[in-house]
Amino acid sequence: MPTQPTPTMHDVARVAGVSVSTVSRVVNNERYVHDETRAKVVDAIAQLGFQRNEAARALRPGQSSDTVGLVVADVANPFFSAIAQGAEEIVREHGHMLIVGNSGLDYQRERDLVQEMLRRRVDGLLVVPTAHDHAELHAELSRWAPIVYVDRAPRGVRADAVVLDNRAGAQRAVDYLIQAGHQRIGYIGGDPAVVTGHHRLAGYKQALRVAGLDFDQALVRFGNHTAEAAEETGVDLLTGPTQADAIFADNNRMTVGALHAIRRVDGGAGLAGFDDVELADLLPRPIALVTHDSIELGRRAARLLFDRIAGTTGPPRRVTHRTQMLIRGG
Amino acid sequence: MPTQPTPTMHDVARVAGVSVSTVSRVVNNERYVHDETRAKVVDAIAQLGFQRNEAARALRPGQSSDTVGLVVADVANPFFSAIAQGAEEIVREHGHMLIVGNSGLDYQRERDLVQEMLRRRVDGLLVVPTAHDHAELHAELSRWAPIVYVDRAPRGVRADAVVLDNRAGAQRAVDYLIQAGHQRIGYIGGDPAVVTGHHRLAGYKQALRVAGLDFDQALVRFGNHTAEAAEETGVDLLTGPTQADAIFADNNRMTVGALHAIRRVDGGAGLAGFDDVELADLLPRPIALVTHDSIELGRRAARLLFDRIAGTTGPPRRVTHRTQMLIRGG
Repeated sequence: MPTQPTPTMHDVARVAGVSVSTVSRVVNNERYVHDETRAKVVDAIAQLGFQRNEAARALRPGQSSDTVGLVVADVANPFFSAIAQGAEEIVREHGHMLIVGNSGLDYQRERDLVQEMLRRRVDGLLVVPTAHDHAELHAELSRWAPIVYVDRAPRGVRADAVVLDNRAGAQRAVDYLIQAGHQRIGYIGGDPAVVTGHHRLAGYKQALRVAGLDFDQALVRFGNHTAEAAEETGVDLLTGPTQADAIFADNNRMTVGALHAIRRVDGGAGLAGFDDVELADLLPRPIALVTHDSIELGRRAARLLFDRIAGTTGPPRRVTHRTQMLIRGG
Repeated sequence: MPTQPTPTMHDVARVAGVSVSTVSRVVNNERYVHDETRAKVVDAIAQLGFQRNEAARALRPGQSSDTVGLVVADVANPFFSAIAQGAEEIVREHGHMLIVGNSGLDYQRERDLVQEMLRRRVDGLLVVPTAHDHAELHAELSRWAPIVYVDRAPRGVRADAVVLDNRAGAQRAVDYLIQAGHQRIGYIGGDPAVVTGHHRLAGYKQALRVAGLDFDQALVRFGNHTAEAAEETGVDLLTGPTQADAIFADNNRMTVGALHAIRRVDGGAGLAGFDDVELADLLPRPIALVTHDSIELGRRAARLLFDRIAGTTGPPRRVTHRTQMLIRGG
């Protein structure tokens, strides 16, 4: 920051000996300015420490506020904080800043957040959408700024999205449990309406089908919103009438809960989970984890967004990010 | 968002049958508007879905952009993402939004970030400062917006800060190791210039002093910037000439590295660490952790900031947040 009050365009114009509108053209990188005139303005700006007033700039139609909005469910979840990390890196490379909001997976809060962001003239939005139908919201939002959805495509909408290969990843991990001899594999899921869970469940079913095992709806338990809830569900699956002998956990919170459940039950239950979990490699039991580079997921979504901000048109793009299975612990 | 182009103050004035300046007075909550007139304007606004242009509002002197900036080292670190979560909660309660940037503990990047945030007219800044002397930067910044430092007070500055009781927390954990029979306790630290490390080292030394153990500089290893580096340092401490029989790790990254080191060495080394680490409770060895509610740390810092934004004056305030020691695992 300058140690004097911020010079105005008038100050720059005076020092450069040009008109204010010429300063404006140089600052906004417009054409029809002689190189020599441009050089004078640039020198004056350097001399005065002139800082363009970003708020004033945001006011002009067609001009940018140089911010991008990111809506995640919960930035304290390591999956979402990794997305924020990757997004921020790319956003900064583009001279922008990142506004971050937590939807808590609540549609009304998501709606309020993106509208607040648009009021602040963000140039684009990165959104991990809630489970609610997005047809109406997307139609409204996309008139104001480009949007790229992250981790899941919203319901009812064809739009740019960067997602994981949920189905294939889950299938591979469940197949690992089957190959290890498990036959009754409990499924612990989060919000039943979130689409990633359904794709992961489809992968779970596919693995059973390929192995010739029956699908039992009683083994599938969605609606766990915390690791603690997943722990109780896990204990119930392993010790109740369903007699599960293994668990597939459909995200990192569910895996943490399932690990605690298995520890409490203290049997030989198998475990696989979607997302990596720190320190799983040091645990005394093997666990099959569907891992992915979630920082890179954030980077890819942000790159796609800046592509749109730069004016790239064309049909919605769906980028599917590969996962891999790792056996941790044991 | 409205499904028609955003109505202007002129549209509102037309529908309400009042002047544009009256609309402006109502929108800005100024006095001298009759209740009946105010009601007409409020009705027209509701009818039109008028949204105040936040960018225009930010332009007016004394008016707010309704954003707050948060600078952390690395939002993917669970400690910093918890701070972001807590800060966002309070920022939202105040009708503001949070701009988040990662300094990567680099002073130049920190400086660039806060200046970019101020250009966007943030109403205040929450900063986890880098280790560099902040006298000059703070003097510049504090002329433009209130600042609250989080986790550490910056060098060379008297300013509002919300910090942890680093010294007492570390002392308690190291004392636990001593009581467990360890005599040569290695210290694994991060950036040697970060002040929290020095306070934690002071707690480490104090625990030795109280127990009548000699301090050995060879056991103190700062400069580990990743969990992987801390792992190598841990292996060296435990197997090299220093013959450490336990480790104190001064933050969550160092603890993750130390856990891996102890696993590789496979001896009976003791371990204590600052910050909680997820899944530590499931590990087969006991670990003493200095835990704290880091979401609440973010909330407290944000509350203090809004106090200043609301105009509270007075000398710099230092809020020290309690830690507790928990024995996990085993």
